[in-house]
Amino acid sequence: MRFIAIAALLAASLLGGAAQAQTKPSLDIADFGSFHVGGRTYEISGQPVKEVLFTPGGAPAKIDPNGKYIVEQMYVQYFTPAKLHSKLPILLWHGGGLTGVTYETTPDGREGWLHYFIRHGWKTYVSDAVERGRSGFAPPGVWQGEPQFLPQENPWNRFRMGEGPWNDDPSKRVQYPGSQFPAEGYINFMKQNVPRWTTTDDAIIRGYIALVEKVCPCVVLVHSQAGQFGQKVAQARPDLVKALVLVEPAGLGDPNKAEALKGMPILTVFGDNIDRDSRWPTIRANQMALNAKYVAAGADLEQIDLPKVGITGNSHMMMLDRNNMQVADLIQAWLKKKGFAE
Amino acid sequence: MRFIAIAALLAASLLGGAAQAQTKPSLDIADFGSFHVGGRTYEISGQPVKEVLFTPGGAPAKIDPNGKYIVEQMYVQYFTPAKLHSKLPILLWHGGGLTGVTYETTPDGREGWLHYFIRHGWKTYVSDAVERGRSGFAPPGVWQGEPQFLPQENPWNRFRMGEGPWNDDPSKRVQYPGSQFPAEGYINFMKQNVPRWTTTDDAIIRGYIALVEKVCPCVVLVHSQAGQFGQKVAQARPDLVKALVLVEPAGLGDPNKAEALKGMPILTVFGDNIDRDSRWPTIRANQMALNAKYVAAGADLEQIDLPKVGITGNSHMMMLDRNNMQVADLIQAWLKKKGFAE
Repeated sequence: MRFIAIAALLAASLLGGAAQAQTKPSLDIADFGSFHVGGRTYEISGQPVKEVLFTPGGAPAKIDPNGKYIVEQMYVQYFTPAKLHSKLPILLWHGGGLTGVTYETTPDGREGWLHYFIRHGWKTYVSDAVERGRSGFAPPGVWQGEPQFLPQENPWNRFRMGEGPWNDDPSKRVQYPGSQFPAEGYINFMKQNVPRWTTTDDAIIRGYIALVEKVCPCVVLVHSQAGQFGQKVAQARPDLVKALVLVEPAGLGDPNKAEALKGMPILTVFGDNIDRDSRWPTIRANQMALNAKYVAAGADLEQIDLPKVGITGNSHMMMLDRNNMQVADLIQAWLKKKGFAE
Repeated sequence: MRFIAIAALLAASLLGGAAQAQTKPSLDIADFGSFHVGGRTYEISGQPVKEVLFTPGGAPAKIDPNGKYIVEQMYVQYFTPAKLHSKLPILLWHGGGLTGVTYETTPDGREGWLHYFIRHGWKTYVSDAVERGRSGFAPPGVWQGEPQFLPQENPWNRFRMGEGPWNDDPSKRVQYPGSQFPAEGYINFMKQNVPRWTTTDDAIIRGYIALVEKVCPCVVLVHSQAGQFGQKVAQARPDLVKALVLVEPAGLGDPNKAEALKGMPILTVFGDNIDRDSRWPTIRANQMALNAKYVAAGADLEQIDLPKVGITGNSHMMMLDRNNMQVADLIQAWLKKKGFAE
């Protein structure tokens, strides 16, 4: 009798697991929406009027390129779960050459960190940095230089997904042993990449400041290039940014403004295989040196190297890795510990 | 007694209205996600290797621009309501120089058509056409020509929001009498605009065909430039596109493939003040001539000019207009009549 009961329980649990894999519990989103923040006027003059046929079968339109343009605005989308478990919203800022899509469905079709934070009761904001994605980009003359494009093989090694170069043939590709990156989704990941300028940091920071002034106080979680944006925006508005999660920050805050972060809870998370890479030891060391200044200035700083807490194989894109929810759990646990979530 | 009852009813109704304006009923979204479809490989060779410092404080990276690039992929986001009222999903395709943001929150902060169709029980897909928004754009050499940028005053007149030119000063601006366009949101609308090429129509059509092959059979609703894409994709895959809603189509289908649309329910919707504009009479006449061919080929076509059914003041961006939900109701009623919605 006891055996039968346990077997029945086991069968029910297995069936339950299968059913959950097929149909996840409802996300229970009560509201979502979007808006643009920031932006400024840029004027063009002295150019000839053009006649443009925008659409075959349409009617030609006279376009006078002279005049005022709106540039450097930033796109933001938000989701409000039906049941909030945090008093503050969380803002997710993506890395270089990417957009807010970083936090959506993973390239191999699993839920992303946006889903995770909604499921954990956070009002969640995802943005496309100025000049990326739905923020649009500005006419020639507004920014110096040209947009940068990445060949499909480039981030594979640079983002520590594989030790050697990318190869379309899986048998000719070397992933790090135990890598958590879903190699079968790599080409889809490359479809998420967008061109990016390298001369727009100040414009991006202005966009993010406009955002925190609109929707914060809040928690800000940043990745990679946005390491710089998160730290500098928190230094500019420590009254609005109440906690900072730096996921493999590849850009730094202002070392002369460490004291602005006095008392601020800051979590830094780095993944695996950093010591086997040519650039990542430097990037991590730069942040650690700055972290020491933040601590000296009174910041409430915690630094987690995932392998040291037994979580191995994570690439630079840990929010896309197979164990992305395990890493999110660790961030959520820290946020709970600091009193930001129930 | 009767007076009191009516007064109480009236008071309750007024209070109910006020409460609804403040907190809308939950959208009740069970699931959402995103993915990219389509795309192809493009190869660059013979270029020098560059050293790029992506982020101040980072470590310089060697970028070899030679190699394969993924180009012409398309970004898609979908929402699944908890209770479906249609067996088919609906796909919302935006117009030129815009992105899927067209169907999200309006520039003056009201719900958009994406919210409307979710609330009416449709699984709804919104995409950014190839080279727009989160689809990213391709390196020089992939497409002919340069991206086009619009001065902030340009669409005001061309999209029939105002009769004269845009002016930042409301007193110097002439809206059409009774215009439904929320002029106070115009600058926010311009923030939604993104650069666009005029040489990418075929690439965009390939992207949309990849989408309908992935998620259809479905209903496709298109706006403006996407008039061409909706009609041509329906002509290419009439087995997958089950109904077509053309909202102010500014681009045409293939007149030599009218018979592909035999039996297909098609709704064309045009707004107000077309006869007072220099270009819109031609654009509408072109579509009407093609509609006649569709009818001759056996399409189940209905054409609605909003002023003729008593709905006045609509601009080209009727999904952003103050009465956007009234226009959506009319489309939903047609979809019900044709058996696509409960």
